[in-house]
Amino acid sequence: MNQTGSQATAPTILVIGTGAIGGFYGGKLAQAGARVSVVARSDYSVVKERGLSIQSPSGDFRFVPEHVLREPGDLPGMPDTILVATKVLPEQPVTDLIRPVVGPETSIFLIQNGIEIEAPMAEAFPRNEILRGLAFIAASRIGPGLIHHYDYGRLTLGRYPGGPSPRATTLGALLESVGVPCVVTEDVVAASWQKLVWNAPFNPISVLAGGADTAAILASEETARLVPLVMEEVCRTAAALGHPLPPSVIDQNIEGTKVMVPYKTSMLLDFEARRPMEVEAILGNGVRAARRAGAPIPHMETLYALLQLIDRRNRSAGRD
Amino acid sequence: MNQTGSQATAPTILVIGTGAIGGFYGGKLAQAGARVSVVARSDYSVVKERGLSIQSPSGDFRFVPEHVLREPGDLPGMPDTILVATKVLPEQPVTDLIRPVVGPETSIFLIQNGIEIEAPMAEAFPRNEILRGLAFIAASRIGPGLIHHYDYGRLTLGRYPGGPSPRATTLGALLESVGVPCVVTEDVVAASWQKLVWNAPFNPISVLAGGADTAAILASEETARLVPLVMEEVCRTAAALGHPLPPSVIDQNIEGTKVMVPYKTSMLLDFEARRPMEVEAILGNGVRAARRAGAPIPHMETLYALLQLIDRRNRSAGRD
Repeated sequence: MNQTGSQATAPTILVIGTGAIGGFYGGKLAQAGARVSVVARSDYSVVKERGLSIQSPSGDFRFVPEHVLREPGDLPGMPDTILVATKVLPEQPVTDLIRPVVGPETSIFLIQNGIEIEAPMAEAFPRNEILRGLAFIAASRIGPGLIHHYDYGRLTLGRYPGGPSPRATTLGALLESVGVPCVVTEDVVAASWQKLVWNAPFNPISVLAGGADTAAILASEETARLVPLVMEEVCRTAAALGHPLPPSVIDQNIEGTKVMVPYKTSMLLDFEARRPMEVEAILGNGVRAARRAGAPIPHMETLYALLQLIDRRNRSAGRD
Repeated sequence: MNQTGSQATAPTILVIGTGAIGGFYGGKLAQAGARVSVVARSDYSVVKERGLSIQSPSGDFRFVPEHVLREPGDLPGMPDTILVATKVLPEQPVTDLIRPVVGPETSIFLIQNGIEIEAPMAEAFPRNEILRGLAFIAASRIGPGLIHHYDYGRLTLGRYPGGPSPRATTLGALLESVGVPCVVTEDVVAASWQKLVWNAPFNPISVLAGGADTAAILASEETARLVPLVMEEVCRTAAALGHPLPPSVIDQNIEGTKVMVPYKTSMLLDFEARRPMEVEAILGNGVRAARRAGAPIPHMETLYALLQLIDRRNRSAGRD
């Protein structure tokens, strides 16, 4: 593995999205010596002028990107890695956006929510390496160029659809070198199903139950009963698709949530701010995968139907 | 059947609740010649002074009760029939309230929403006849003593748990005599399951999907798919409990809803007004009945868990 630090050998990374994920992991990679540029939209002028500020319990830090761009195509040259850290919304495909800077050696690294979100990218860039990262982090963008990292930060990453990746190893080592725990896996798809075990119940229920945090969901008898039923459906689907998860995963997720500080899910935060929710990435893709695999998922289907409609209504309300 | 009209032979009816149901059916029974008194709470002074006004497409009318009471016990004597037309909320049992006026010959007639709501009444008054009415009506209380009847009005009624009832026949004939279509049945429990076929999907979904009327629910692919799945679970439960419903009931309910004017369910109206919803009467009792019968009802359970929690949050918000 290369030692980083010299400009000549440092990997070049272009971050798409200056929200919590892009700001935190991009900033950490820069801290580790990578040459990190960002594409900023609404935050452009603030980030261009001052960079990003990350407040973190492990030490506040500033992230001054090498280049702050309005469009990926403004980057001089092709980056080694494009780190995609946007929300996954069907109406905002990232493939066309990044096409101008996808060189033959460029890896596309998705640190995003959801299941089966890699496929469109793999289809658009069949010769490029697709990496997927699964962030276990509590962080949010609290203002233009301003990110608050509350807790955690662990990243699981690997090559899609599977196998070893020297570049994933390098990125993991860079992040580890600045205190971000990383797990490099050769089966990142299983890891993404494992993450869905938590996301599939808690994200939708938090919204549909009228704005419930994790503690409220687990405190109510019937929703506490519903959570593991949804988790079982995710496990059943993953197994049917060739990614069996360890049977302990359900208990671990529930027990782990019980000891967490009561937590509002990302969907709930989006809902409350009348932003589009990642309904399709988190739940719709899971439902379609289950239907393809012939796995019965009545609880997930119920959540999905409700969530789709409430998201649509929430978006129109947001436009009023 | 008695001819009504003379004070001597006219049945005496005490209506509990001066909302849309109590006002409309109480008023119609008075119109038909019954001696109808009412127990009014928040509307007491208005109803005492002016009676109830019912605006109806079939003709506005005024309902001046024989007695307007604050408490059932204020009624002189025991009524032939107590018409209970309150919302069914676990924290507001009606049994204790009416006990002072339940004579040996008194029938207790529940025109209320929900499934298996008769049991507590039958337990409290094991020697009295319990009647159940299922109203198919669009009506709401729009102000103190003021009721708007929009459409429909058909009533299915019968003795609980089953069998013939001369008093149900009399009440049905009275209502028919003033233009309210009535069906007197000897299996009112099956009729109440049949009503739940509609209520179990549309009421919860309307609230959980963010305030959707019937048309919005049927226009969205995934919720339109969810509706018949919930209906099947209701049919399965009813059958398991010895009340098989005709197989056509699902299609009929869906097709019937498609041709109705887009309609906000009673639960949605309650939710929007931050009033308690009839979660237990409509959904909780159905879920418990299914569990007792061993019928799998994953879609209903999901709706129930979400609805219970959102109702709890909505009630606290209403108190703020």
